[in-house]
Amino acid sequence: MKIILIGASGTLGKAVEAELGQRHEIIRVGRNSGDLRVDITDSASIRALFEQTGGFDALVSAAGKVHFGQLDEMGEEEMAVGLKDKLMGQVNLVLIGSRYANDGASFTLTSGILSEQPIVLGSSASLVNGALEGFARSAALELPRGQRINVVSPNVLVESMESYAPFFRGFKPVPAADAALGFARSVEGAQTGQVYKIW
Amino acid sequence: MKIILIGASGTLGKAVEAELGQRHEIIRVGRNSGDLRVDITDSASIRALFEQTGGFDALVSAAGKVHFGQLDEMGEEEMAVGLKDKLMGQVNLVLIGSRYANDGASFTLTSGILSEQPIVLGSSASLVNGALEGFARSAALELPRGQRINVVSPNVLVESMESYAPFFRGFKPVPAADAALGFARSVEGAQTGQVYKIW
Ligand SMILES: NC(=O)c1ccc[n+]([C@@H]2O[C@H](COP(=O)([O-])OP(=O)(O)OC[C@H]3O[C@@H](n4cnc5c(N)ncnc54)[C@H](OP(=O)(O)O)[C@@H]3O)[C@@H](O)[C@H]2O)c1
Ligand SMILES: NC(=O)c1ccc[n+]([C@@H]2O[C@H](COP(=O)([O-])OP(=O)(O)OC[C@H]3O[C@@H](n4cnc5c(N)ncnc54)[C@H](OP(=O)(O)O)[C@@H]3O)[C@@H](O)[C@H]2O)c1
Repeated sequence: MKIILIGASGTLGKAVEAELGQRHEIIRVGRNSGDLRVDITDSASIRALFEQTGGFDALVSAAGKVHFGQLDEMGEEEMAVGLKDKLMGQVNLVLIGSRYANDGASFTLTSGILSEQPIVLGSSASLVNGALEGFARSAALELPRGQRINVVSPNVLVESMESYAPFFRGFKPVPAADAALGFARSVEGAQTGQVYKIW
Repeated sequence: MKIILIGASGTLGKAVEAELGQRHEIIRVGRNSGDLRVDITDSASIRALFEQTGGFDALVSAAGKVHFGQLDEMGEEEMAVGLKDKLMGQVNLVLIGSRYANDGASFTLTSGILSEQPIVLGSSASLVNGALEGFARSAALELPRGQRINVVSPNVLVESMESYAPFFRGFKPVPAADAALGFARSVEGAQTGQVYKIW
């Protein structure tokens, strides 16, 4: 399969490449690195990416930023970061990418455990992750030409605990390689509208 | 209790007033009707509302618009309707309202069955409803002074079937009065971070 991997240089993306790269052609994409570049917050940039890739069999997104901060300091501006980047960035990869994707192609997005298991400072992440999961369940009904969509919801990653541990006390982190299996299940399986929880 | 009811003139709002109005003081709020007016898509308008209400014991939101449409006709503009209105309109009622609300006050927002049970044309609704539920779970951890937040997720309402039936074939609609019980549970109960499913 020809797989477009957005966020290939990241903690999660590297593990996805290690897993899927064993069996498939990976086009590595990032904002500042990779075989190709994209800024997912910019629809024109997303369109330009697909003009370069042409048809593909799977798109995996392991990218997406949200603002972490206290609820009483969350305003429209802070919330807009996650809406524009992790949420609509990934949603637009599907809405725009679907036109370029091959028959039967799959889209796999990344949410995270905070949609169901919240932490202090994480209200925007919980909002965005919940939105991504709702969107995927619904988009699965309407994607054309046998295309599929799923979401992988990882727990906090072992590899990220050096910086994230204080915010995730008591959570049992998962290796990025375990999270990568969720992407393999989505890309190489046949289900659609699923949320694969890696926790 | 002094309860602010946003969307009081609506199909759902009228049933909430019938239920909670039996035991509490209801301040009816709408965009074009009610004791007071607000446009929830405008933060300044939300602030002006709370300057008029002063402290309150509960805020119930039974308002919020999303765009229904085919996935392949969904672009940023169509998605922005739901993000600005049903999602951030209700989120901003909490973020701004929390400063004005009394100790122990509750916020109850409205999502809907589509977060979990999707329909064709409903990708924006599923996204927005999922986001509201994720947000409420997380905001519950951080609301100050014993304040609480819950979401009511109604099935399609009996009273709305005249216009919605073609989109909800096979769904068993619930009376708005049943959905109103979810708001009573949230306002008059003691839980927080819950999604009350009326289906
Ligand atoms: N790390 C965790 O513990 C964890 C747990 C659960 C969920 N997640 C989710 O998993 C995703 C990836 O997390 P991560 O920790 O692997 O992130 P990361 O290490 O910071 O990597 C981010 C990757 O995304 C790319 N990227 C960033 N902004 C972009 C943009 N606007 N357009 C295109 N590419 C962009 C980066 O490209 P460049 O390097 O080229 O700039 C990089 O490859 C996020 O959605 C995160 O919320 C992470
Ligand atoms: N109806 C259903 O079957 C159903 C099922 C599940 C969930 N829901 C959800 O329940 C909520 C209410 O639905 P409904 O059918 O009762 O709606 P509705 O009958 O159309 O009533 C909408 C109410 O919200 C007010 N409103 C609209 N836009 C507003 C804004 N920007 N700012 C402030 N107030 C605004 C309206 O005020 P004015 O009349 O003064 O303009 C009206 O009181 C929505 O979030 C909907 O998605 C509905």
